[in-house]
Amino acid sequence: MANSKQIIFSAKERAILHKVLAARRDMRHFIADASVAPDVMGRLFEAANLAPSVGLMQPWRFIQVQNDQVREAIAELVDAEIQATANEIGARKEQFLKLKLDGVRSCAQLVAVVLAPDDGTLLGRRTLPREMALCSAACAIENMWLAARAENIGLGWVSLFDPQKLGALLHCPIDALPIALLCIGPVTEFYDKPMLVNEGWRNQKPLEKLLFTDRWPLGGEPQ
Amino acid sequence: MANSKQIIFSAKERAILHKVLAARRDMRHFIADASVAPDVMGRLFEAANLAPSVGLMQPWRFIQVQNDQVREAIAELVDAEIQATANEIGARKEQFLKLKLDGVRSCAQLVAVVLAPDDGTLLGRRTLPREMALCSAACAIENMWLAARAENIGLGWVSLFDPQKLGALLHCPIDALPIALLCIGPVTEFYDKPMLVNEGWRNQKPLEKLLFTDRWPLGGEPQ
Repeated sequence: MANSKQIIFSAKERAILHKVLAARRDMRHFIADASVAPDVMGRLFEAANLAPSVGLMQPWRFIQVQNDQVREAIAELVDAEIQATANEIGARKEQFLKLKLDGVRSCAQLVAVVLAPDDGTLLGRRTLPREMALCSAACAIENMWLAARAENIGLGWVSLFDPQKLGALLHCPIDALPIALLCIGPVTEFYDKPMLVNEGWRNQKPLEKLLFTDRWPLGGEPQ
Repeated sequence: MANSKQIIFSAKERAILHKVLAARRDMRHFIADASVAPDVMGRLFEAANLAPSVGLMQPWRFIQVQNDQVREAIAELVDAEIQATANEIGARKEQFLKLKLDGVRSCAQLVAVVLAPDDGTLLGRRTLPREMALCSAACAIENMWLAARAENIGLGWVSLFDPQKLGALLHCPIDALPIALLCIGPVTEFYDKPMLVNEGWRNQKPLEKLLFTDRWPLGGEPQ
């Protein structure tokens, strides 16, 4: 590849990036018994490791789940968390329980993303140390997500788990924090809109309600 | 645009995404007195708002800084934080102070990203509520970053500030949290490698040290 400082992107290349950004979906429905080739998984991980990180700390760690018993134990943690959420969600419990919220058992590849124990990086982290490490790891996941969509395979970020229990199951150090279960694999089709929109769970806010000038809006956010 | 569920990306389109991912840099050096056209800024914000978010909460808010006095007050907060970091960084203080760590005064556009006050979303956030909101906002910034690189303009995520003071300056609610100052604008050239690598501050870890199977490595991480 050309030296990155010499690369000039064209309008056509820009349009392709925006097409990927717009087509990315948080997928929960996977084709069972499908597979993802190792070279495809390799490209996803390489995309992740190209992410920015505060002070260049690269706080992301990936645990690829290959063992079926480990996967089933993880699936049971997710089941328990879905139930725990249902018990707290109040009036919409019935609707909530109809949502398909994970693809841990059916996806071709399951990857846990773990925030590494703090390495003490100070640059850019004096005031928001934990927050900036988390943000860096999230950027890596977003890179991976876009790379997956460009491979025409689905990815879903499942955050329905008890992080302490998941950390123990994966033998993580006590000061590491699992932040994601990534369900990855072939799908029959991508949702045309976010699944929670399609299911009538929630609508999306348009940009104009989220973009302000010089200050937080006087009188509060537009409703 | 075609319905997203019908889009199949080609190998060529995939390669373009990876080219953008690899060419993205955290920029600190900008061309002074340059500008970014409003339609370009619009595409960056639209890219951001296409990001995934836990429970579809879209916790990101963008404050575009147009007022020069507001910008200068922000720059002074960053100056103060750089000095505060220098005072804590120990043996590498001299090297640290030689690094160019922000482009707040010289970039064409300055945007503060603020994590909105918690809206109480429970789905996917029962166990890690704050973390998942932060991760969502970070995904939006990464989308914006990639979109900026594809426009051939630089973006730098500056996290050197006191979030309480920045929040007060921007009249944010007490329960909102500024997480980023995005310096955006034309650059003379993109760094060929991360600036902190070029400056001899730190090296990057290769993927194989960050990727594990089924569990955290027995005996700890590879060094």
